[in-house]
Amino acid sequence: LKIFSCNANPKLAADIAEHVGVTLGDGDVSSFSDGETRVTLNESVRGDDVYVIQSTSEPVNHHLMELLVMIDALKRASAKTINVVTPYYGYARQDRKTRARDPITAKLVANLIETAGADRMITMDLHATQIQGFFDIPVDHLLGVPILAEYFQSKHLGDVVVVSPDHGGVTRARKLAEFLKAPLAIIDKRRTQPNVAEVMHIIGKVEQRTAIIIDDIIDTAGTMTQAANALVEHGARDVYACGTHAVLSGPAIERIQQSHIRELVVTDSIPLDKEKRLDKIKVLSVAPLIGEAI
Amino acid sequence: LKIFSCNANPKLAADIAEHVGVTLGDGDVSSFSDGETRVTLNESVRGDDVYVIQSTSEPVNHHLMELLVMIDALKRASAKTINVVTPYYGYARQDRKTRARDPITAKLVANLIETAGADRMITMDLHATQIQGFFDIPVDHLLGVPILAEYFQSKHLGDVVVVSPDHGGVTRARKLAEFLKAPLAIIDKRRTQPNVAEVMHIIGKVEQRTAIIIDDIIDTAGTMTQAANALVEHGARDVYACGTHAVLSGPAIERIQQSHIRELVVTDSIPLDKEKRLDKIKVLSVAPLIGEAI
Ligand SMILES: Nc1ncnc2c1ncn2[C@@H]1O[C@H](COP(=O)(O)O)[C@@H](O)[C@H]1O
Ligand SMILES: Nc1ncnc2c1ncn2[C@@H]1O[C@H](COP(=O)(O)O)[C@@H](O)[C@H]1O
Repeated sequence: LKIFSCNANPKLAADIAEHVGVTLGDGDVSSFSDGETRVTLNESVRGDDVYVIQSTSEPVNHHLMELLVMIDALKRASAKTINVVTPYYGYARQDRKTRARDPITAKLVANLIETAGADRMITMDLHATQIQGFFDIPVDHLLGVPILAEYFQSKHLGDVVVVSPDHGGVTRARKLAEFLKAPLAIIDKRRTQPNVAEVMHIIGKVEQRTAIIIDDIIDTAGTMTQAANALVEHGARDVYACGTHAVLSGPAIERIQQSHIRELVVTDSIPLDKEKRLDKIKVLSVAPLIGEAI
Repeated sequence: LKIFSCNANPKLAADIAEHVGVTLGDGDVSSFSDGETRVTLNESVRGDDVYVIQSTSEPVNHHLMELLVMIDALKRASAKTINVVTPYYGYARQDRKTRARDPITAKLVANLIETAGADRMITMDLHATQIQGFFDIPVDHLLGVPILAEYFQSKHLGDVVVVSPDHGGVTRARKLAEFLKAPLAIIDKRRTQPNVAEVMHIIGKVEQRTAIIIDDIIDTAGTMTQAANALVEHGARDVYACGTHAVLSGPAIERIQQSHIRELVVTDSIPLDKEKRLDKIKVLSVAPLIGEAI
């Protein structure tokens, strides 16, 4: 068993390797002068079961190509199996035609990964679980909810209500609510444009409770911070938020900073750049979870 | 017949469309807030023969993904055929294993383009013509030499010698020499590291002649500027240089500026950023050539 890392999650990859009890494979993923991706494997992988750790996080196209070239190199070096570990699966929100003539990029990416030569896929909290069906190879779909739940349990927050910021996230929120033995509330919002969320009203009782909003991807954080505002307006005592994938693009950090959210809990499926490491953002590691799956 | 452009060659695409006598297809290739590529087709392509113009030039992984998502969108919108026009085919130099465990990224890219749904490929001056065989779909391989030859003919440079900067480029140089009815010289160099070229000696007579160096890709321009120096040392009267693909990465512009090269002639297979537009760089358009091929 060998574990290689590309450039999206070097720290997480090292943590996973440590958890599994191996040293990281000796490979180099860099760029030529003109920006073309260059992959060099400095050790044999012939006959090995190889795991490649690489989220397709921003810069997404670059990280995706690093992954594909790495798979190609491993395949041509006669690895026995190539197991792709993509803690954050980019393009997951382009999973269906929302308008005529839309691409379905989440499916395209699945095809690309298979074409490159992957034998198995390990990923976490896909935006839509249907994406598993985009692959013909086996997909292990890990869930971040237990990790988030454990953290909140340890905080003893008292009267808690778990909040789904939209109808699409209710299954996930219900799971967290079960772990925390807490009731559920749902924010009924309509979205007018991408990256712009609009809060409508709240289904369920939030007054005098500590609300924990849960989402899968926190991108521009519009959904989440508006939800937080709505919860406070409706009498919530305090607001926490959590989500597996901390994309945090555009105005996200400013919005979170200025919001009613006391603490945002995320995982290291996407590493936080330095300027995103706010005091109120807590990062939990998925290394043990992925280590177990490997 | 419809022609769409992604973001690598907007000007060239417009010129090709004009040459063909159609207006560019109404599509939009942009990015979401988190950097994911977003393709929107604003007109029907159902039953159409569609051409997509996109060099996979720097940022190569980004431009490649734009192309793949565009192909996916066109395919799902029921285009009759999808014809990919990639004037500059990136990753062409990763076309074989130069060391154990190298990827063969030029082949990977061919597979990705086919997987996305391309029916035919039009490209120019592939670094190695073997890359045509990496595709199972038809490949039209256009040559820039006639365009370059015509330009040099119009300059009436007198006693000319065409110079190949390495053994790999002799076929291309011989073609230019035939057009110009000029003799041929070859620079015998050995390369020690990628992006570092080393000039050895010159096979053929260059004294008292105007040398025209020809290469396919001008990347860091190390090969070309060292060749120019060697030619001047060996008594060449004047040195011109030409090449189809103006990658011009890293130190290229500085090297060209400071070299003995009087003029560098390239094509618009890769558009020149503003800071690369030196007085001594002449750009010829491949729009008529590609227009004919369409
Ligand atoms: N990277 C992205 N950033 C923002 N919005 C996106 C992104 N990818 C897809 N979308 C849009 O998000 C919507 C799907 O999200 P959802 O309804 O939550 O599944 C569609 O309207 C997509 O066009
Ligand atoms: N983008 C690139 N920039 C510089 N060198 C490259 C690039 N891609 C591949 N190479 C190297 O170029 C050599 C092949 O070039 P050539 O011998 O001219 O066909 C190999 O050693 C490759 O590792």
